[in-house]
Order: sequence, then C-alpha cells, then structure tokens
Amino acid sequence: MSLDADDAGGMKPPAVVLVSGGLDSATVLAIALEQGFACHALSVDYGQRHAVELEAARRAVGRWPGVAHRIVPIDLAAFGGSALTDSEIAVPEEPTDGIPVTYVPARNTVLLALALAWAETLSASRIFIGVNAVDYSGYPDCRPEFVESFEALANVATKEGVEGKRMRIEAPLIHLTKAEIITRGTALGVNYADTISCYQPDPTGAACGRCDSCRLRRAGFAEASLPDPTRYQAPNR
Amino acid sequence: MSLDADDAGGMKPPAVVLVSGGLDSATVLAIALEQGFACHALSVDYGQRHAVELEAARRAVGRWPGVAHRIVPIDLAAFGGSALTDSEIAVPEEPTDGIPVTYVPARNTVLLALALAWAETLSASRIFIGVNAVDYSGYPDCRPEFVESFEALANVATKEGVEGKRMRIEAPLIHLTKAEIITRGTALGVNYADTISCYQPDPTGAACGRCDSCRLRRAGFAEASLPDPTRYQAPNR
Repeated sequence: MSLDADDAGGMKPPAVVLVSGGLDSATVLAIALEQGFACHALSVDYGQRHAVELEAARRAVGRWPGVAHRIVPIDLAAFGGSALTDSEIAVPEEPTDGIPVTYVPARNTVLLALALAWAETLSASRIFIGVNAVDYSGYPDCRPEFVESFEALANVATKEGVEGKRMRIEAPLIHLTKAEIITRGTALGVNYADTISCYQPDPTGAACGRCDSCRLRRAGFAEASLPDPTRYQAPNR
Repeated sequence: MSLDADDAGGMKPPAVVLVSGGLDSATVLAIALEQGFACHALSVDYGQRHAVELEAARRAVGRWPGVAHRIVPIDLAAFGGSALTDSEIAVPEEPTDGIPVTYVPARNTVLLALALAWAETLSASRIFIGVNAVDYSGYPDCRPEFVESFEALANVATKEGVEGKRMRIEAPLIHLTKAEIITRGTALGVNYADTISCYQPDPTGAACGRCDSCRLRRAGFAEASLPDPTRYQAPNR
C-alpha cells in the first residue's frame, strides 16, 4: 500500500471515485485503491442512451471487495443537446473537428458536483475522476484547467474547505495516453472485459468498433501490445 | 426594459434562473425578467423534506407569462448529512453557531452545475441564483467567493467559455438584506404569498414561524414595513 493516503492510525481515509463503466474510470478506481483510500464509487445515470455502461460500472466496482457503490439517476436528457442523451442526434462514426456532438452539456461539472456532495457527507477530502487531456475528443471539461478550477471551487464551496481541510480533485490519468492507462490498469489487476467504452453498444453491451471512443480504445490496446478483451458486434455491413 | 441584457435585434437573450420556491429566488426571477432576459426557470427536487417548496416554485414561475419551467429530480438524500434531506436529523428551532445542520451538502454547487448544463444547451451566457451573503446562515456556498469561483469554472467548463463567450453567474441579492430584497421584489410585482421559506412547513405549506428561515423572513417584512403574507401554522404549544 502506498503512503499517499495519509493513513491515519490504520483507518483508511475516505475518497469518492467517479466510475462510469468505461476503461478510464475503472483504472482510476484501481489507482485510488492502490493509494490506500477507502473508496466510495459514484456512478451517475444521466439519461445516457448506453445504459449498459451502468452494468459495466457494477462489474468494475464489484470486482473489488469493500467498495461502496451508489448510482444516482439524473435526467440531463431533459436539457437535450447531445448525441449521448438525445436520441434524435446521430453518433458520428468519423473523426470531427472541434467539439463533437457526443459532448454532454456540463457533464463533468455535474458529476463532480455530485461527488462533492457525497464527499462532504463522508468528510472525504479526495475526489478521483478519470478525465484525460490526451485522448480528450475536444471536450472542454477534460482539460487540466477544468480540474484545477473545480478544485478551487470545492475549497470555497464546502465546510471542509472553509474549515481549512483542503479538498483535492485527483485526475491521475490526465496526462497519460490510452496505451499508458491500459498498461497501468492491467498491472493493478483491472479486467477491461468488465468495461464499456462504445458510444453505441448493442443491448448486450457489444461495442460498435467504429465510433471515436471505440477507435481510441482499440488503438490503445494495440499500442500497449496487450490483448483487447472488448466484445465487438459481429460485422454485418 | 433595461439594457442589461444586450438585447440582440429584438430577440431576448436566454438566461437560466434557479427558482426554489423561496422568497429570494422569486425575487431574482422578477429581476431577471425586468432586465430583459428570456427566462428559463430551473427547480431541483433534491429529496428535500419540504416538497411543498416545489408547489411554491410552480406558483412563483406560473405568475409570469412565457417563462419555461423545468423541475429536475435528484436524490441528494442518498448522501445523507442534512436535516433538510435526512429525516433522522431534527431541524433546529434556536439560532446556532457555525454551519447549521440544515446545510445541504454542496447544494448550490449541484444547482449551478445543473443550471450550467441547461444554459449550455440554450447557448445562454447568464445564470441567475438567489444566494445572499447577509442572511446566509453560515452556508459556505452563499458567499461572494463561491459565486466568483463558480463563474471562473463555468468559463473553462463549457463550449461557450472555451469559444470566448463569457458565462456570468448573476447573484443580484448577494449584498442585500432580507428587508431590501422584499422591498425590491414588491416593487417588481412579486407576490410573496406564492413563496415558502420555512424549513418545516406542514403538508398544506403553512410555515412554522420558529425555524431560522421563518425568523429571518418575518423580521424582513417587519423591517421593510410591508405586510407579511406568510400563512403560519396555528400556534398550539
């Protein structure tokens, strides 16, 4: 166990870990556990079309003993505006310039706000999130300046911050490539067969292999020279 | 109509206004309308015990023609930790030192995050919130530094911010006393009988008259020399 967690008298300090069911957040959970935190996994059902992700989140969390898991439903689809929550917008299958339509409005702000609420009730001063600035697909809320800005907010928004207990937003993947993430997680015992990255999986959770997220994931396993355990849909066109 | 809204060619610019059903946010809605914004009222049902507040929000919004209203449910009670969401913690009836148990964890962070999501889909660059630093009951997320910090976050978290369209968090009540808020809202046509401030109203929405929030409200009407339209519970003890 690492010393990163400021282990106080044998009690593991609590941390909230955002777990989406994807490859990145499953890796972050393994990193937080390895650093010695008592992990509280938070998944948010934000009305996304790929609800099979939540099943993946349950598998990814359930693999580790002693990790609490809460799934909070919230209807971001009520606001529309993204191919991930709005069934009238098509998921693109070719790379696009600029910010893609798969962007969910203010998603990471909402996720971190909910994590902050749970962290406050736990008196936890760490929140882990799997954002990544390398393969970030142009999402503004995956950049280091976003994470730093939320950390500054957390320190004025909460009892903990006001009382001088520094809140930290941990984004351990932020500067890693997909291949580096996969290599790290594999070493820590993550089973990536648990996870789903595809923006348009079929109802069984099989991946399309064509969307941005599938392409990044597949290339990551190839670059890491590790077998890709992803279950892809049968090619039928 | 004021010129504050940067009225572009006769089209009113959109704004999201957080409306809780309380006195403050009803006043903020009237201010945003008076400034010429096309208002989109957002209420969040965060598992609070006083759900009659949402009925008050419907009344307060319904009084103005042309205001869109969305109510988003979110279960902050799942995280526990506050007398307003956790039925096992009693609401205090005497003033307390420090941060009171009625504090809902990260409430305004969660509310603003949701407002930001809607603002992004509307391409709105203004969010109005009724926080108040004078009668703030010790909540960290009612202070000017909280509002400023969220505004900084909004400008790195969103497409609008990244593309150079400045997001603004408007907190027009932040330095007003309760009496000043009531005086302002009354001049703008707010009917405070629509609103509920009590932390423990009865099922009909009648106020207890004893909690922190009732005491502040009652004193505000007295100081403003305006009649208090609040319906109080019959005194039976």
